[in-house]
Amino acid sequence: MRIQGQSRETVWETADGRAIEVIDQRRLPYELTTVRLGDVGAVADAIHSMVIRGAPLIGAVAAYGVCFAAESASDADIDPAVAVAGAQLRATRPTAVNLGWAVEFVIRQITAEITAAGKREAARRAARQIVSEERERSRRIGLVGLPLIEAIARKHHRPVNVLTHCNAGWLATIDFGTATAPIYAAHDRGIPVHVWVDETRPRNQGAALTAYELAEHGVPHTVIADNAGGHLMQRGQVDLVIVGADRVAANGDTANKIGTYLKALAANDCGVPFYVALPTSSFDLATADASAIPIEERSPDEVRYLDGMGPTGPTRIRLVPETSPAANPAFDITPARLVTAFITEAGIFIPAEIAGVVTQLPSEFSTPADCSSG
Amino acid sequence: MRIQGQSRETVWETADGRAIEVIDQRRLPYELTTVRLGDVGAVADAIHSMVIRGAPLIGAVAAYGVCFAAESASDADIDPAVAVAGAQLRATRPTAVNLGWAVEFVIRQITAEITAAGKREAARRAARQIVSEERERSRRIGLVGLPLIEAIARKHHRPVNVLTHCNAGWLATIDFGTATAPIYAAHDRGIPVHVWVDETRPRNQGAALTAYELAEHGVPHTVIADNAGGHLMQRGQVDLVIVGADRVAANGDTANKIGTYLKALAANDCGVPFYVALPTSSFDLATADASAIPIEERSPDEVRYLDGMGPTGPTRIRLVPETSPAANPAFDITPARLVTAFITEAGIFIPAEIAGVVTQLPSEFSTPADCSSG
Repeated sequence: MRIQGQSRETVWETADGRAIEVIDQRRLPYELTTVRLGDVGAVADAIHSMVIRGAPLIGAVAAYGVCFAAESASDADIDPAVAVAGAQLRATRPTAVNLGWAVEFVIRQITAEITAAGKREAARRAARQIVSEERERSRRIGLVGLPLIEAIARKHHRPVNVLTHCNAGWLATIDFGTATAPIYAAHDRGIPVHVWVDETRPRNQGAALTAYELAEHGVPHTVIADNAGGHLMQRGQVDLVIVGADRVAANGDTANKIGTYLKALAANDCGVPFYVALPTSSFDLATADASAIPIEERSPDEVRYLDGMGPTGPTRIRLVPETSPAANPAFDITPARLVTAFITEAGIFIPAEIAGVVTQLPSEFSTPADCSSG
Repeated sequence: MRIQGQSRETVWETADGRAIEVIDQRRLPYELTTVRLGDVGAVADAIHSMVIRGAPLIGAVAAYGVCFAAESASDADIDPAVAVAGAQLRATRPTAVNLGWAVEFVIRQITAEITAAGKREAARRAARQIVSEERERSRRIGLVGLPLIEAIARKHHRPVNVLTHCNAGWLATIDFGTATAPIYAAHDRGIPVHVWVDETRPRNQGAALTAYELAEHGVPHTVIADNAGGHLMQRGQVDLVIVGADRVAANGDTANKIGTYLKALAANDCGVPFYVALPTSSFDLATADASAIPIEERSPDEVRYLDGMGPTGPTRIRLVPETSPAANPAFDITPARLVTAFITEAGIFIPAEIAGVVTQLPSEFSTPADCSSG
C-alpha cells in the first residue's frame, strides 16, 4: 500500500541479508521510522513491545526470528537452538495463533534437513515463504470480500459505511491487511467507501494506525471513540462491520482485540452484518471453542498512560489519579453465534463450515491443522 | 463526600451571596480548583464547556443562572430577562432533561410572584430548593439501591463487583451521586465493594472523575478501557452494572453517556443485572420513547486530542493523524428492554412502571411532568 505516495510493505530483508527491517508502529502516526532486527532476541523484543503487531505480521517476523537462530548457531547446535528460539518467540504474545504456527512451520522445515547448510537454507526459504503466502492471502481476502461492498454500493448508490476495530490493516500484515483488504480493493476500483475507525483503547491502534493507513492511501474515514459504534449502528450509519482476528477456534469463536465482542453484540442487535476477515492461518482447529484460548493481560500502565503528539513532540500523559489501579485484558471472545461470516483467502463461509473448508485447502496454503500434525 | 479527608459538595453560594462556586471538573484528577460563577453568561459557559457536568448538577447550577438573571434585571424587566436566560441555558446541553426542568421550575416560581422583590426572593429560594432536593434524592437513591449490593455480598461472601460508566458520581450531583450512591452507601456500612470504572472516552469522565471520587473516598476500584467491560462480564467478574442517565423517556428508553448501550447489550448477553440510577427529575414523561430525544454532537477535537498530566504539567496530546477527521456523538440510547430496573429516590421499578410511579410522587419531589404542565 502507499505511504507518502510510495508503495511499501511492513517487513523486508536488509541488502546484506543479515537482518530484516520493519516499520516501528509505536511511532505512527507521528513519525515513520524503521527498526533493524538481526537476531532472535531483537525479534522477540519487537513482538513483545509491539514495535510490530497484528497476527499475520507477528507470524512472519517470528519466522525470521527462528531463521536468524538457525543461521547463527554452530553446525551441531541448529536443532536445539531453533527449539529454544521457538519457545522464546511463542512466549511473547500468547493469544495469536499465527505466531506458534509460523514458528512450528519454520522449525519443521529445518529439522527435516540433514546437513547444517541444508537447515540454514531451509530456514531462510521457510521465512520467505510465509511472507509471500501471507501477502497473497491478504490480496485474496480483498478480492473475496469485495463483492460484499459492491453489492451495498449498487443497492444504495451512496458511499458504503464500514466500521472496523483495532488495526487489521496492511500494517498488521505484509500488505493489504485483512479487515481492510476488501475496503482497499473497493476503493482502488472506484467504489465509494467510508470507514468508521474505532479508536481502540487502550493502545489506540485504530486512531493511530488504521487512520494513518487510510489517510495515506486516500480512503475517506472518520475516527470515533470505541463507545460510539453502537449508536451509529442504531442510527443506520453502518452498513457492515469487518474486523480481523488473532485466533478463531474450530467452532467459530473469535479472539480479537478487546472490545470486538461489544461491536458484535451491537451489530447483532441492529441487524448489521458482522464479518471477521482473516487468513486461514488464523484458524485453530485444534481448539474446539473459546474456553481454551488464553487471553493476554498486558500492563495496567497501557490504560493509565497514553502516548500522543504533544506541543513539542511525542509525549506521554497520565489519565487516572496517581493511586488508581487499572486492568488491561488485551483480547476478548466474540461467540460464533454473533459472526455473520468469515472472509478468508479461501472464500466466505459461516462458522459451521470452518472445519470442512480449512481441512480441504490446497497444500500451498498450510494451515495450523497441517502444522500441528507435523 | 470526602476529598483529602474533608467533606465537600459540588456547588455552594459565596459568602457575599452574589455568586456560586463550583469545582472545575476539567482539572480533575490532577488539580482541585474552584470557579466563581456570578451571572447567567458565566453559568452557561461553565455548563457548555463542562466545568461542571452531570445531569443533576447541571440542573442545580442552571437554576442559579436563572436566579442571577432575575437578581440583576431592573424591576420591570425580570420576567423577560429570565425568559432570555432560560433559552440561553437550555441551549448549552440539549440531551439532559434536568436542565430544562430546573430552568422551568425557577422561572415558574418567579413569574408567579407580582412584586420585583418577591420575584427575586422566589428565584433564590427556588435555586436553593433544587440543590437541597437533589442532595436528598441522591441520598435516598443510595439507600434504595443498597439492598441490591447487600444481597450479593451476603450470597457470595466476597467483594461485590460493580461496573459503572462515565461519572454518575457525587461530582455529577450535589452529593452522593446517582449510580455511585448505592456503592458509597454500601462502602460506608462496611460491605466490601469493588468498582470497575469505565474510562469513558472521549472525555474520560470515568478515568478522571469516578476514579478520583472513589480514590478520595477510599473505595476499592480498577480503571478499565471502555472496551473491556464485555469481557469481564463474560468471565463472571461483574455482579451488576449501575449507570446514571441524562434523560429517560416514558417507556424507559435511557439516554446516557455514549457507550452505555454497549454495556447494556453485554449485561443482557451475560445475564448481569443492568440498573439505571437516577433522580425522578431525569424522567421525561412528555417524551414517549427515545426517538424524540436529541443526541448532542460535540466537537471532533474531543476525540482527536486528549488532556492529561504530562511530565511538566497538564498537557494536551493529539491521538490521530493530522488529516483524519473524527465524529463525537456524546450520548446513546439504551432501549428499555435492556434495563433490569431503575433505582430512584422513590424506589426500584421496571420500565413499565415508570408512568405509574412518577405521577404518584409526593409534591415535594417535583417532576418534569408537573413542570411542563405548569
